[in-house]
Amino acid sequence: MTDLPETPLLDTVSTPADLRGLKPGQLRQLADELRAETISAVGATGGHLGSGLGVVELTVAIHYVFDTPRDRLVWDVGHQCYPHKILTGRRDRIRTLRQGGGLSGFTKRSESEYDPFGAAHSSTSISAALGFAVANKLADRPGKAIAVIGDGAMSAGMAYEAMNNAEQAGNRLIVILNDNDMSIAPPVGGLSAYLARLISSSEYLGLRSLASRVAKKVSRRVYQSLGKAEEYTRGMVTGGTLFEELGFYYVGPIDGHNLDHLIPVLENVRDTEEGPILVHVVTKKGKGYAPAENAADKYHGVQRFDVITGAQAKAPPGPPSYQNVFGETLAKLAETDARICAITAAMPSGTGVDKFAKAHPDRAFDVGIAEQHAVTFAAGLAAQGMRPFCAIYSTFLQRAYDQVVHDVAIQNLPVRFAIDRAGLVGADGATHAGSFDVTYLATLPNFVVMAAADEAELVHMTYTAAEHDSGPIAVRYPRGSGVGVTLPETPQLLAIGKGRIVREGKKVAILSLGTRLAEAIKAADVLDAKGLSTTVADLRFAKPLDQALIRKLLTTHEVAVTIEEAAVGGLGAHVLTYASDEGLIDAGLKLRTMRLPDRFQDQDKPEKQYADAGLDADHIVATVLAALRHNVTAVGARA
Amino acid sequence: MTDLPETPLLDTVSTPADLRGLKPGQLRQLADELRAETISAVGATGGHLGSGLGVVELTVAIHYVFDTPRDRLVWDVGHQCYPHKILTGRRDRIRTLRQGGGLSGFTKRSESEYDPFGAAHSSTSISAALGFAVANKLADRPGKAIAVIGDGAMSAGMAYEAMNNAEQAGNRLIVILNDNDMSIAPPVGGLSAYLARLISSSEYLGLRSLASRVAKKVSRRVYQSLGKAEEYTRGMVTGGTLFEELGFYYVGPIDGHNLDHLIPVLENVRDTEEGPILVHVVTKKGKGYAPAENAADKYHGVQRFDVITGAQAKAPPGPPSYQNVFGETLAKLAETDARICAITAAMPSGTGVDKFAKAHPDRAFDVGIAEQHAVTFAAGLAAQGMRPFCAIYSTFLQRAYDQVVHDVAIQNLPVRFAIDRAGLVGADGATHAGSFDVTYLATLPNFVVMAAADEAELVHMTYTAAEHDSGPIAVRYPRGSGVGVTLPETPQLLAIGKGRIVREGKKVAILSLGTRLAEAIKAADVLDAKGLSTTVADLRFAKPLDQALIRKLLTTHEVAVTIEEAAVGGLGAHVLTYASDEGLIDAGLKLRTMRLPDRFQDQDKPEKQYADAGLDADHIVATVLAALRHNVTAVGARA
Repeated sequence: MTDLPETPLLDTVSTPADLRGLKPGQLRQLADELRAETISAVGATGGHLGSGLGVVELTVAIHYVFDTPRDRLVWDVGHQCYPHKILTGRRDRIRTLRQGGGLSGFTKRSESEYDPFGAAHSSTSISAALGFAVANKLADRPGKAIAVIGDGAMSAGMAYEAMNNAEQAGNRLIVILNDNDMSIAPPVGGLSAYLARLISSSEYLGLRSLASRVAKKVSRRVYQSLGKAEEYTRGMVTGGTLFEELGFYYVGPIDGHNLDHLIPVLENVRDTEEGPILVHVVTKKGKGYAPAENAADKYHGVQRFDVITGAQAKAPPGPPSYQNVFGETLAKLAETDARICAITAAMPSGTGVDKFAKAHPDRAFDVGIAEQHAVTFAAGLAAQGMRPFCAIYSTFLQRAYDQVVHDVAIQNLPVRFAIDRAGLVGADGATHAGSFDVTYLATLPNFVVMAAADEAELVHMTYTAAEHDSGPIAVRYPRGSGVGVTLPETPQLLAIGKGRIVREGKKVAILSLGTRLAEAIKAADVLDAKGLSTTVADLRFAKPLDQALIRKLLTTHEVAVTIEEAAVGGLGAHVLTYASDEGLIDAGLKLRTMRLPDRFQDQDKPEKQYADAGLDADHIVATVLAALRHNVTAVGARA
Repeated sequence: MTDLPETPLLDTVSTPADLRGLKPGQLRQLADELRAETISAVGATGGHLGSGLGVVELTVAIHYVFDTPRDRLVWDVGHQCYPHKILTGRRDRIRTLRQGGGLSGFTKRSESEYDPFGAAHSSTSISAALGFAVANKLADRPGKAIAVIGDGAMSAGMAYEAMNNAEQAGNRLIVILNDNDMSIAPPVGGLSAYLARLISSSEYLGLRSLASRVAKKVSRRVYQSLGKAEEYTRGMVTGGTLFEELGFYYVGPIDGHNLDHLIPVLENVRDTEEGPILVHVVTKKGKGYAPAENAADKYHGVQRFDVITGAQAKAPPGPPSYQNVFGETLAKLAETDARICAITAAMPSGTGVDKFAKAHPDRAFDVGIAEQHAVTFAAGLAAQGMRPFCAIYSTFLQRAYDQVVHDVAIQNLPVRFAIDRAGLVGADGATHAGSFDVTYLATLPNFVVMAAADEAELVHMTYTAAEHDSGPIAVRYPRGSGVGVTLPETPQLLAIGKGRIVREGKKVAILSLGTRLAEAIKAADVLDAKGLSTTVADLRFAKPLDQALIRKLLTTHEVAVTIEEAAVGGLGAHVLTYASDEGLIDAGLKLRTMRLPDRFQDQDKPEKQYADAGLDADHIVATVLAALRHNVTAVGARA
């Protein structure tokens, strides 16, 4: 899209070992070139930009000071790792980021020994780093573990659980708190306010008073190095009691873009005999690229863009996204229903809750990266008569599974779940795929589980969920744009557990759940043309099943196929279980279940992922034809 | 078991309204009688004792000061709620605690309007109370929300997530931190050390200095009341910065057994205009009952006991418990394998990890109530070459589901899961049942899922898990004692994905997973006696399936039945899916799947629960006979 930047020094660095051969005075230039290369690469591929730009200097400093890969560097979330990938032997593939067959947009163990722990969900890094540190301690091996975690990720419970357990690691564990006051959305909550106070504190402790306050804890060398850095720190060294109370030695805040601060502090943190240490580094998301610095989201995730202007490639005009259809529908319903609330866990725009929040700010709750709390908070709201919608991506709802079971399902509380990013998600790959929600929700008593076949269905299902006060209910829908159907003026109340026939046929029945319906219809066209008259049903509900409809379809068609964008244990399993319970299978059923494969799929374009998964029209046709050809007498004789 | 205590004052109190009619001077007597009644009731039923005794005064004080049930009282975990149940209209049923058809051992919404939110898993109370508070705020209704949470529960991430979001509730939210320095096992971690420092702090702040320090925050009335209480507090008022940094106003520590402290402080906390407030109350687990106070576990959970002596009813001698077989097997394996580690989340004795810890203290990790961290910490250990076993109850593993998916399964790391309390669990009821693990684990790529049919099998499976370095592996087993088989001298390495034939027959095949095997064998005896020659297979693996064995059994027997102590979506669903994928069902299969029912089951004796679930020998026989009788021609004619 643009010319490659000139990077004469970076061209000499293909691994951290090369980097460590440079003189400290060369690192500023290296960082500048690394930043330019990162911007250029993401300009070509799209992806996460702001986070990576914020840690360019930190990336250089860590690899310069520490002995990676022996020292284990764990990037929390991992979307800030593009500069790290460039410095760790992957520069030649950096323009394949997030493409099919290319580099992952996150850290990934199978990609490089410099990625000792993969990530993509937030807040896992301290736990993992603690595992590395303790393993080294047990084996009496050298090697530090460094977790780099953002302030947003610190709001998640598991980061706190890990901090609460970190003391045992001693000086083998270093946590670098990358405080950019901004994860995807502006930060929320008490911790964020606390960090802001730390930074803005008027109570500046000079290095001498800092030293006297904690001299018994941290070795002298830390203070010697801090002494060197003092002239640069402009009053950025202060308390940190919250972390100290959890057992850490706190150092900071440090300017995360100033290598003359970072290098000596990290060197001495590396060499101290005390620990664990938390280094509070302040960075600017999007640093060094004006279009990113000036954007509200700091170019958190971007399309391909022009490096000179920052202009991002526009998606061709098309149907609205599912997330916006959800958010706007809910906002409209809430105009006449004061009980409706919306809850998001740090994803206001990704879930469409931003649309709701604009119209109903009092009833919109962004709880930060805190899915567990989000669900039980919603359960409390429901128990007190509200109609809460938890809008959480399928993959992130996994983090609140116990709360879904224990606080919602067992108590049969009417919490509504708006499950975005259900199914395959394209460039984000396996970690973000919403593969398991049908299975893990439909196994729970009391739950109603719906999947929207298109954006009009999502309108109806959102309304149906709002009106469903007798227990928990979920609606799942995919990432991206709808299929282009007209949105209904008035939402329709769906009968719970009732599907619909989309087209009537005689020989083949396709039982679809969710947006594979479009492929089912395409397949039906092909099958009809082959003389195989095909019924297509949109079951709408994975639970409760439309038993009457399913019985009819299974017993009046020669072949039946279920299809869903979900892993084994979902709709197909429930249909088979029903057919078995009722003895329908005794008479023989040419019934097949199409579902996600039993493997994690790497990033690619969604349509390629679905083809790879065997969940497109071609595969439906092939499955039907194979079933028809299948010779039942070939199955071993029955006793 | 013993005479009932004399409780003349308690006899006049059947609801909190009665309690609020008493004079403050009568409350001490009421508390004493309530304690005696609690001891007497638990002596008769068994159950959780120490926790309830620790909060007798707190229970009285809360109901005296607050307007329950309008004010919403949420007991964290809920096992300390027996005194609360006695005071809230349930005294007449208190000796049915934890019995079939009786009162739940936890708070339960369906039991009483005084239980606005049920619990049993820890650390949910602040989130739920925040939901109540915010709902009241939105509706502009009066009503406080009070969460009572133990110090152990505070180590869980979701409590922190909730605190981080609490500021919005203002004075509607009151969190009472019940600090007894002891959940089930002694506490661990930085937070616990911090709380101990708060209590033992030599830095005693007089009420005057406390007032001047936070006077701008908390209304004058709090300090007026604290003034009254000052003479009693013996230096127990100090800092609390960690909570203040998260946005709370901190009051405490307060002696939780002294009603003259508790009542005025709670009254003024109730009436203040500022908030949210955290009241730090120090109590003694087992308080007021010498046998409990003197026991290591403070009579956390007890059998029926003699009130005079404290002697608990002994279980009849019998086979060892699964948890101890696991712990001892792992300890033995670790003698010759320095890579084996064991991790528990605050359940060292419940999981048998205490046995391991005794032998290998360096390699045993109790992380506190922090399942999320436990799993990702184990993933870090595995990534660094260790062989970690996460020993977590089935129901609690739900709390780490995302970590299981994202950190373990996607990365294919060899974390071993020892899943205790799989299946129905008796007196603890629905919240503790391990119903869903087969479903939520077997849907994940890369996972191996085993279930032990008896304690000898558990020995083999523990060894097999230790040796399995190619990916994640889980073994599930039930609560309680083994079946009495001889334990093997030498553990056997099982072939992954291979089942075993336990007895050979010709007409009926029972495919069992886990400890229902004993019932399957009983059923086979009955069926054989009826002339229905029955094969019994122990599949051992829910994933990967032993496809060859299953194919053979399905195609050479007239009826096949799967059975498992797990909900829909588990073994039965996987067998059906396999049979469908392979076209085995085309020819007709009398295949039935027996599993847990699609409802949550209340507490009862396990054998009654399994009968209720339809998972005993009688039901297996009935299922087989019904399938044999089933007339396939009755199914609608095929097209």
